Amino acid sequence: MDEDRVENGEGEGKKESKGEERSVEEIFESQEVPSWRNQLTVRAFVVSFVLSIMFSFIVMKLNLTTGIIPSLNVSAGLLGFFFVKTWTKMLQKSALLKQPFTRQENTVIQTCVVASSGIAFSGGFGSYLFGMSERIAKQSEDNGDGFKNPSLGWIIGFLFVVSFLGLFSVLPLRKIMVIDFKLTYPSGTATAHLINSFHTPQGAKLAKKQVKALGKFFSFSFLWGFFQWFFTAGDDCGFVNFPTFGIKAYKNKFYFDFSATYVGVGMICPYIINISVLLGGILSWGLMWPLIEERKGDWYPAGLPASNMHGLQGYKVFIAIAMILGDGLYNFFKVFSRTLTGLFHQVRGNQALPVANQPVNPDVSKRLSYDDQRRTQIFLEDQIPMWFSVAGYVTIAVISTIVLPHLFQDLKWYHILVIYIFAPVLAFCNAYGCGLTDWSLASTYGKLAIFTIGAWVGSQGGVLAGLAACGVMMNIVSTASDLMQDFKTGYLTLASPRSMFISQVIGTTMGCIISPCVFWLFYKAFDDFGMPDSQYPAPFAVVYRNMAILGVQGFSALPKNCLSLCYGFFAAAILINFSKDMMGKKWGSFVPLPMAMAIPFYIGPYFAIDMCVGSLILFIWEKLNKTKADAFAPAVASGLICGDGIWTLPSSILALAGVKPPICMKFLSRATNAKVDTFLGS
Amino acid sequence: MDEDRVENGEGEGKKESKGEERSVEEIFESQEVPSWRNQLTVRAFVVSFVLSIMFSFIVMKLNLTTGIIPSLNVSAGLLGFFFVKTWTKMLQKSALLKQPFTRQENTVIQTCVVASSGIAFSGGFGSYLFGMSERIAKQSEDNGDGFKNPSLGWIIGFLFVVSFLGLFSVLPLRKIMVIDFKLTYPSGTATAHLINSFHTPQGAKLAKKQVKALGKFFSFSFLWGFFQWFFTAGDDCGFVNFPTFGIKAYKNKFYFDFSATYVGVGMICPYIINISVLLGGILSWGLMWPLIEERKGDWYPAGLPASNMHGLQGYKVFIAIAMILGDGLYNFFKVFSRTLTGLFHQVRGNQALPVANQPVNPDVSKRLSYDDQRRTQIFLEDQIPMWFSVAGYVTIAVISTIVLPHLFQDLKWYHILVIYIFAPVLAFCNAYGCGLTDWSLASTYGKLAIFTIGAWVGSQGGVLAGLAACGVMMNIVSTASDLMQDFKTGYLTLASPRSMFISQVIGTTMGCIISPCVFWLFYKAFDDFGMPDSQYPAPFAVVYRNMAILGVQGFSALPKNCLSLCYGFFAAAILINFSKDMMGKKWGSFVPLPMAMAIPFYIGPYFAIDMCVGSLILFIWEKLNKTKADAFAPAVASGLICGDGIWTLPSSILALAGVKPPICMKFLSRATNAKVDTFLGS
Repeated sequence: MDEDRVENGEGEGKKESKGEERSVEEIFESQEVPSWRNQLTVRAFVVSFVLSIMFSFIVMKLNLTTGIIPSLNVSAGLLGFFFVKTWTKMLQKSALLKQPFTRQENTVIQTCVVASSGIAFSGGFGSYLFGMSERIAKQSEDNGDGFKNPSLGWIIGFLFVVSFLGLFSVLPLRKIMVIDFKLTYPSGTATAHLINSFHTPQGAKLAKKQVKALGKFFSFSFLWGFFQWFFTAGDDCGFVNFPTFGIKAYKNKFYFDFSATYVGVGMICPYIINISVLLGGILSWGLMWPLIEERKGDWYPAGLPASNMHGLQGYKVFIAIAMILGDGLYNFFKVFSRTLTGLFHQVRGNQALPVANQPVNPDVSKRLSYDDQRRTQIFLEDQIPMWFSVAGYVTIAVISTIVLPHLFQDLKWYHILVIYIFAPVLAFCNAYGCGLTDWSLASTYGKLAIFTIGAWVGSQGGVLAGLAACGVMMNIVSTASDLMQDFKTGYLTLASPRSMFISQVIGTTMGCIISPCVFWLFYKAFDDFGMPDSQYPAPFAVVYRNMAILGVQGFSALPKNCLSLCYGFFAAAILINFSKDMMGKKWGSFVPLPMAMAIPFYIGPYFAIDMCVGSLILFIWEKLNKTKADAFAPAVASGLICGDGIWTLPSSILALAGVKPPICMKFLSRATNAKVDTFLGS
Repeated sequence: MDEDRVENGEGEGKKESKGEERSVEEIFESQEVPSWRNQLTVRAFVVSFVLSIMFSFIVMKLNLTTGIIPSLNVSAGLLGFFFVKTWTKMLQKSALLKQPFTRQENTVIQTCVVASSGIAFSGGFGSYLFGMSERIAKQSEDNGDGFKNPSLGWIIGFLFVVSFLGLFSVLPLRKIMVIDFKLTYPSGTATAHLINSFHTPQGAKLAKKQVKALGKFFSFSFLWGFFQWFFTAGDDCGFVNFPTFGIKAYKNKFYFDFSATYVGVGMICPYIINISVLLGGILSWGLMWPLIEERKGDWYPAGLPASNMHGLQGYKVFIAIAMILGDGLYNFFKVFSRTLTGLFHQVRGNQALPVANQPVNPDVSKRLSYDDQRRTQIFLEDQIPMWFSVAGYVTIAVISTIVLPHLFQDLKWYHILVIYIFAPVLAFCNAYGCGLTDWSLASTYGKLAIFTIGAWVGSQGGVLAGLAACGVMMNIVSTASDLMQDFKTGYLTLASPRSMFISQVIGTTMGCIISPCVFWLFYKAFDDFGMPDSQYPAPFAVVYRNMAILGVQGFSALPKNCLSLCYGFFAAAILINFSKDMMGKKWGSFVPLPMAMAIPFYIGPYFAIDMCVGSLILFIWEKLNKTKADAFAPAVASGLICGDGIWTLPSSILALAGVKPPICMKFLSRATNAKVDTFLGS
């Protein structure tokens, strides 16, 4: 346990300016932290509402075109600052300003917007929810499984009963995740740095320099994103498809895709995470998948399309899920047992200050920097009692267990109950994994629900039940990781957990109304909506439905040896974790993390290469000038992440406006190129 | 006059490490400079001979495939060092070493190899000389103009009578070019820095740091070249064809081609040069050519291929020539009058030390750094008397005037005489232009000879006579700029001008024998040699023959208004120079240089953009840290130039070995890309 904390603590240490001049919180010392009630202002929620609509449009558009949604935390933070700052400046001029704009308020806006626009993703408008419709049923493998067409009424109702559970499910774990585990949450950290830098009081020299560095790399990263855009007219075009290590490696997803975001993430994450991710990538895409592919025709039928779950794709998805579950479960039980021990000690009368909730180790407390101390103190000041989380979770679970079977006839109350029993574990897994690597794997957990519930319900209505279960699960795990990400941002900006939580609740409420309306607009505005070659093909809707069909057919429909491999990797994940804990501080920190290893299994190792490039840059920088690297690396990394993040906004607007990039930077093998030249010449 | 010197002096100043620690020559102070006789060792020429053969192969290959030859000075310097160092180390171990390896000896090798492999280019094996052959005559517009097939005998004879003239033609101008004008000669300077860095005595701290910086950027540039190579499987592929500013700008040759060489060149050249080149590029490719192209069908017939001299290409070539001639002539007469005044003063008895040959201005001499003083002193120590240059030039001119008409019946003695009268002026122009921008425009002057002599001789044998005249001219002007480049290297490495000159003579002799033999090997080895779609198409041979045919048809065959534009730009070049001189030090330095402006007229502004990027980097660096920029910029620039330069060697070897790059990075417009995707999909 301790080893983990120390190791991650070192990673975290990178983010503080050690020694040189004043630390972040020392600079902010003069500024009073407003009470949690004062952090929740009316103007904050007005701005959040406007931004939520904007972001919901963007996310919906991405949902329905490519299906890949980047993290929007940074954009939300930045735009929130911009809006409120304009507002307060205007009021200041007319002398009407009552309350200055604080970084806590900024964090509240960011949290609210992320929560709200998150629903646009986890609502499954491009995946499970639209996968239930008649239009998609007609396109899928087997269309005898019924359908449920979207309609504004039941969608809003559905979202209201499932979206708040995630908030309560991981609420009690915030201290463990943020303070004890010191998880990184790269996006959350970057956003916090951005917000801190905006609100830095005048006269702080190092901070000013850091802000300058952040600004420089922010502009670079933004301009780089802008420059890249011009060369992406087409599917395989642009720097994101650069076959840096050759075409063969590219086909196995080994390439450097010039993503400023992941280079920045690599600079923020501890080395061991980056190495784990790369190792996982090499193991899966470098070894296992090519080897399995050689058995094509034996292990699984040849000639299947790449996305078919009966083929190679099945191995990728299920082995990744197995490994993630193994790691998640191990850690869940570790935390669980630790919590029990803690409670036991408390009950025995070992009462102490909340800060000393963890075993008081003089070495540890001495080692804590001023920043850490202050942040921990504020973070633990406004408690949210355990009974509140439990009561909230149970109440909502009961309501939705009653309501959901009325919406989906095939989904029975006991199915929902089972989901709600396991959901907290999976929510924990996702929040934990996201904290390590910035990837929220909500859709992966959703897929798990599709398969298990689909198989359980069976051929009578299993497809629709599976898709609905997916929705329930995705909403829980996705909200959980978002909330924890925001808690991290709140921790680093001294925002109260209470205001964070309330902001999340308000944001989720907004999202439950805004998102369906935006979807309805798209759905009604475009006649060919959801058709394969239309402007909005919603590609994942068919994929999800097909997965549900596979689920109904049961495990036996999985390709050969897939299940045994899953068992193997599940066991391996637990074993690796166990040996890591057993080996002690010194050697354990060299053992890779199974959760981080599993992510590239499904996605591909390209982002691992980006992250390792980030690590390499940091490593060289530390070799050259440790002090400087310690002081500026987080700012540089945040700049890289934020610039790229903000670029998604104009790029989405360009896409919505129908402005397409003019040039395709294409990569062809010599032989293909010769053919193309002949074709173009003639 | 003075303004010029000062301005260039400031440019030059960049290359020295001002103030901080010891300067280059202070570091080398302990090392004795060997006498010029001792700089010429047998081992140096043995190594030169081996390298000459290697480089001749490379140049010949490039001649016969693309026709574009990069500067090989750097490679020659580096490989020369490597070979002799190995040699001396081996001898040192066996205690047989009599003389240590000095940087002067290294420069001698470099000079000899460049002179020798230069003949492989200026010998015209891919252009005028092979353009005379029957095989090319059959491919050209009009094949009734006779031919002269290559044969080892007459080629060697021809080269021997024309190649040495260039050496003598600019020999007396070395002091003016190198010391008074302080011309940059980027390749020569970079080579000198490389050689100096190799031979830096132990214990020099700044020098060591500089060598480290050079090495770092050398590796970067080399690896970058290597990386780029993989993506160049095809004609328009790779980073060199990156449409950085869009496809329309690319078609007008406005793009950043990621060439480390020209970014480095831009860092070494004074700002005004880079701005001039960019200005010229914008004026020509941004304004004039598009405007002229709009008159297609009116000013010149529509539907001509891009390379036809009756079309747009005619304007490009002739306007560039006119501007270069205007600038060259103005400067020639300026120097000429100055030389006469200087002589007049000397004859009147104003005898002084050679160093004080220029009007002694206490401000100027005080401002000269120790490095400049020492280099100037050494450079002027070993004089080569004026009568020697004149006698040499006249003797060789007489011999070749007698011999050439026997080789080419249509070329009469008076044609040759006229060439030899004007050649020194043009040789000066080329050496001057090359000193400013690193571009040797030998082939442009060769084209001038094709047209004038071709027109003069007329339809009876004018084509062959024009091509032969081109050879005479190209050999003179090309050798002249090479020699001056080497003098600059010699100046910066304290090598004696005498040893430079003798090394050039020996190198030229080698080249006159090696190059024809290498060509003969290619010619005899490949049956389809020179045919359009063969492995060695010698693309420029047809171009040159067509130009000769145009020349015979006379000026009247030039497109409409081309001649008037030429007059205009000729006059403009003189006017700009004149106003620059009149405006005085302060404002004159802001006037662009016509010579630099004219170069992109023909080639295109892409390299100007590279150079401006180099300028920009230097500018920002100087803003951030002037001392550091002053100390390290030349090393970084040299590293960039040298790394890219050396990469040409392995890339040529790969090409010779038939290893082709595997990937094409192609740039297509969105519409074309859609077509290609459909084509590849089907």
